[in-house]
Amino acid sequence: MKSRDGSDLWAFFEPRSVAVFGSLKDGMGLGYGLIKNILDFGFTGKVYPVNPSYSEVLGMKAYPTVNQIADPVDLAVVITPPSTVPTIIEECAQKGVKAAVIVSENFADAGGDGAELQQRLVDITTHSSIRIIGPNTVGIFNAANGFTTIPYPFGYDKVRKGGIAYCSQTGVVLPQCQPLEDRAYPVSKMCDVGNKCDVNEVDLLNYLADDPETKVVAMHLEDVKDGRSFMDAARRLVARKPLLIFKPARSEAGARASASHTGSLAVNDRIYDTAIRQTGAIRVNTWQEYWDIPKVFAYQPLSTGNRVAIISHSGGAGVVATDVAVESGLAIARYSDATLDKLAKLSPRLAGNPIDLGPPLSLTDDPLSLQEEVISIVLHDAKVDCATIVLYVGTMAPISYIVEMFDRLLKRVSKPMTVWFYGTSLALIEEVSRQLEGLGVPTYTDQETAVKALGALVRYSGFKRGIE
Amino acid sequence: MKSRDGSDLWAFFEPRSVAVFGSLKDGMGLGYGLIKNILDFGFTGKVYPVNPSYSEVLGMKAYPTVNQIADPVDLAVVITPPSTVPTIIEECAQKGVKAAVIVSENFADAGGDGAELQQRLVDITTHSSIRIIGPNTVGIFNAANGFTTIPYPFGYDKVRKGGIAYCSQTGVVLPQCQPLEDRAYPVSKMCDVGNKCDVNEVDLLNYLADDPETKVVAMHLEDVKDGRSFMDAARRLVARKPLLIFKPARSEAGARASASHTGSLAVNDRIYDTAIRQTGAIRVNTWQEYWDIPKVFAYQPLSTGNRVAIISHSGGAGVVATDVAVESGLAIARYSDATLDKLAKLSPRLAGNPIDLGPPLSLTDDPLSLQEEVISIVLHDAKVDCATIVLYVGTMAPISYIVEMFDRLLKRVSKPMTVWFYGTSLALIEEVSRQLEGLGVPTYTDQETAVKALGALVRYSGFKRGIE
Repeated sequence: MKSRDGSDLWAFFEPRSVAVFGSLKDGMGLGYGLIKNILDFGFTGKVYPVNPSYSEVLGMKAYPTVNQIADPVDLAVVITPPSTVPTIIEECAQKGVKAAVIVSENFADAGGDGAELQQRLVDITTHSSIRIIGPNTVGIFNAANGFTTIPYPFGYDKVRKGGIAYCSQTGVVLPQCQPLEDRAYPVSKMCDVGNKCDVNEVDLLNYLADDPETKVVAMHLEDVKDGRSFMDAARRLVARKPLLIFKPARSEAGARASASHTGSLAVNDRIYDTAIRQTGAIRVNTWQEYWDIPKVFAYQPLSTGNRVAIISHSGGAGVVATDVAVESGLAIARYSDATLDKLAKLSPRLAGNPIDLGPPLSLTDDPLSLQEEVISIVLHDAKVDCATIVLYVGTMAPISYIVEMFDRLLKRVSKPMTVWFYGTSLALIEEVSRQLEGLGVPTYTDQETAVKALGALVRYSGFKRGIE
Repeated sequence: MKSRDGSDLWAFFEPRSVAVFGSLKDGMGLGYGLIKNILDFGFTGKVYPVNPSYSEVLGMKAYPTVNQIADPVDLAVVITPPSTVPTIIEECAQKGVKAAVIVSENFADAGGDGAELQQRLVDITTHSSIRIIGPNTVGIFNAANGFTTIPYPFGYDKVRKGGIAYCSQTGVVLPQCQPLEDRAYPVSKMCDVGNKCDVNEVDLLNYLADDPETKVVAMHLEDVKDGRSFMDAARRLVARKPLLIFKPARSEAGARASASHTGSLAVNDRIYDTAIRQTGAIRVNTWQEYWDIPKVFAYQPLSTGNRVAIISHSGGAGVVATDVAVESGLAIARYSDATLDKLAKLSPRLAGNPIDLGPPLSLTDDPLSLQEEVISIVLHDAKVDCATIVLYVGTMAPISYIVEMFDRLLKRVSKPMTVWFYGTSLALIEEVSRQLEGLGVPTYTDQETAVKALGALVRYSGFKRGIE
């Protein structure tokens, strides 16, 4: 068995040269699509189209086989009919290609002949040094160096660069399927591992633990190939950065469904639950949590404690936040006497936590200044470790005011916080969210996830304090 | 104690004449704002501004007191300083005004003197026939007749008319604070009950049970004033239409927070949980579920059983749907032999449930036709009671195609279904969702809620079959 330290994954994420196997039909072929994506995205390495039916594509020479390429090739991306794939991979291995992403499907995911074809790929990896991601995957997206193996169209350059690595066992959460520009998730790397005939979650955990661009890892997985290696790798990563795991196929029926599309085996979900907890990783339970909770780690410092301040324009929203905070392991902060004095001077209605800004704001001529003052006083309280804030965005509190307010606040205080916006316009909510995250304040489209994210941050912060 | 059959709430939702008490300052005063909203929204009854400092506003005569209005008044809306409110309500009661919405805050929500002021209001309701909603509320929104008591600006006429009544104990979920136009929730009526000094959840349940425009009731409440009356009213409503209850203040800290903004008392959450279940109502647990789950009832027929078909473009999404389906009480349908034969002829990869459309669509020249054929075959299977469908929207599957496909499908088969869209553009996802709901197919912004909604529908359908 080859080393599993993940160091050999660089050829997938940062290849110097890529050979693309697939249809080069103008505008239609997936090989053509991938080459176009690679060029548009700004990849600066060498690209070699490989297809015996073409001599040229997009101004580049096409090669009949990989052997005809004189220079070394780091990565092969294969999008050809399944029956042709083992020979292509064998030839790549012989040439010394370091890594291959097999986009083609109908291998173990289809069962029968497909499973046999996949076994031939496994055999190649055992008697050569080539590493394989897939088959049945769209592979790699690396925001840092502008490289992708996804053959489908999308404005890959519009993804916000940042600290979150998203890994999954499905392609539906990669950039060709998700509103990454609109949501502005701050991405370092993405990877769909597909059928995991070779590279699996353990390799990724090891690679991403060492990746300087990745601050937090969100991993969707339907099964684990080797429980002990997984736990070792997860522990190693968690010692350096937070790990969030979305593990569906919780139910028996879900596990059967997983087996039918990836060839995975079912394991009692409680075993996963215990294992994940033991490593210090945090389990998330929905796609929304998979996408949104990592943002708090990408943008915010760790927390020095679990005492949360809840500031809201709405008493009703404050109650909801309080419930979710308690259920997420947060303690409702008791403000210091000095803070209570300052708040009482502003309004007798501001004594509690959660703070309901609604009544005092409706009684003042300058609600925006009062709001900022209250948030500032509370964030400065030494008895407050973190905060979740509910804000209105709209004509009475425009985006520019909100962004400027946080710009001022962030210059004076650095404590973890999350924000949930409400208002009558989705477009405004989405725009203020993007701008605020540009300042490093994570925002949420639903209140419960905003609070849960803070709970996850506090839990990981406590875990880190315990082991340091 | 007055009758609690809810029949006397008509004056709140369908007044023939309204007196507005509040500041009439041009463009700034909340009384002015409310009158403008009422006029803009298309209310056809009479409006009487009441304010001794004005003789005219917006082309209407203003009255110094309610006694000066010669004609009868059905509803008073009061937005004046708290200390002035009891006298105004007393005068309204003497004139025979049937109902009053008190928007003003700082009553029991503020404690102290405010609680005493609120008691004076309660006293008035016990020795007169006037009914009160509030204080500390924005009151009423009635999409059917174009009437609202909300004084804040918003395009009230842009709310989609439909079958959902949303009731809450907070104003933050009313139209002045939520993207109702963008989300196109189909609304019959909305009501924020505020401090509930008189009208409470029991009155609303009784009124909405009889309301022909309301097909489903979603109710947010932090406390229940009278458990036995509540259960009786909930049972009566549930016998006619579904009831979804979002009951925060689950935690002790949450209940304390609730007490501080509405003057409510805490009760062990398990008591609520059991009581809600016993009435046949369905408890929801987040704002998102409060908003989104009712749509399935507003748009879809009840289900004849719990066997769900899961159709998806993504194996990974199919697994997630399977988990949530099982956890929501759905059974994963086993297709009939005839269905399996038809599907096998289209592709050997289509045998299972969930169906992963991904592989077969990638192998055909006409994926859109194949997708429609598969959905149609599955929906026609007598062993399938309902379906949840995951679809891509974007350049390869434009909105017009999706809407036309469902238009054709709905002409041939009527089974409950929910749809979750994914794609690279939020704007496209939002637009196709609005258009598809225009055809009566509920759509969801996250997959888990799409499946949970179907689970809620199936549960209520079973409840109805059991008692009929």
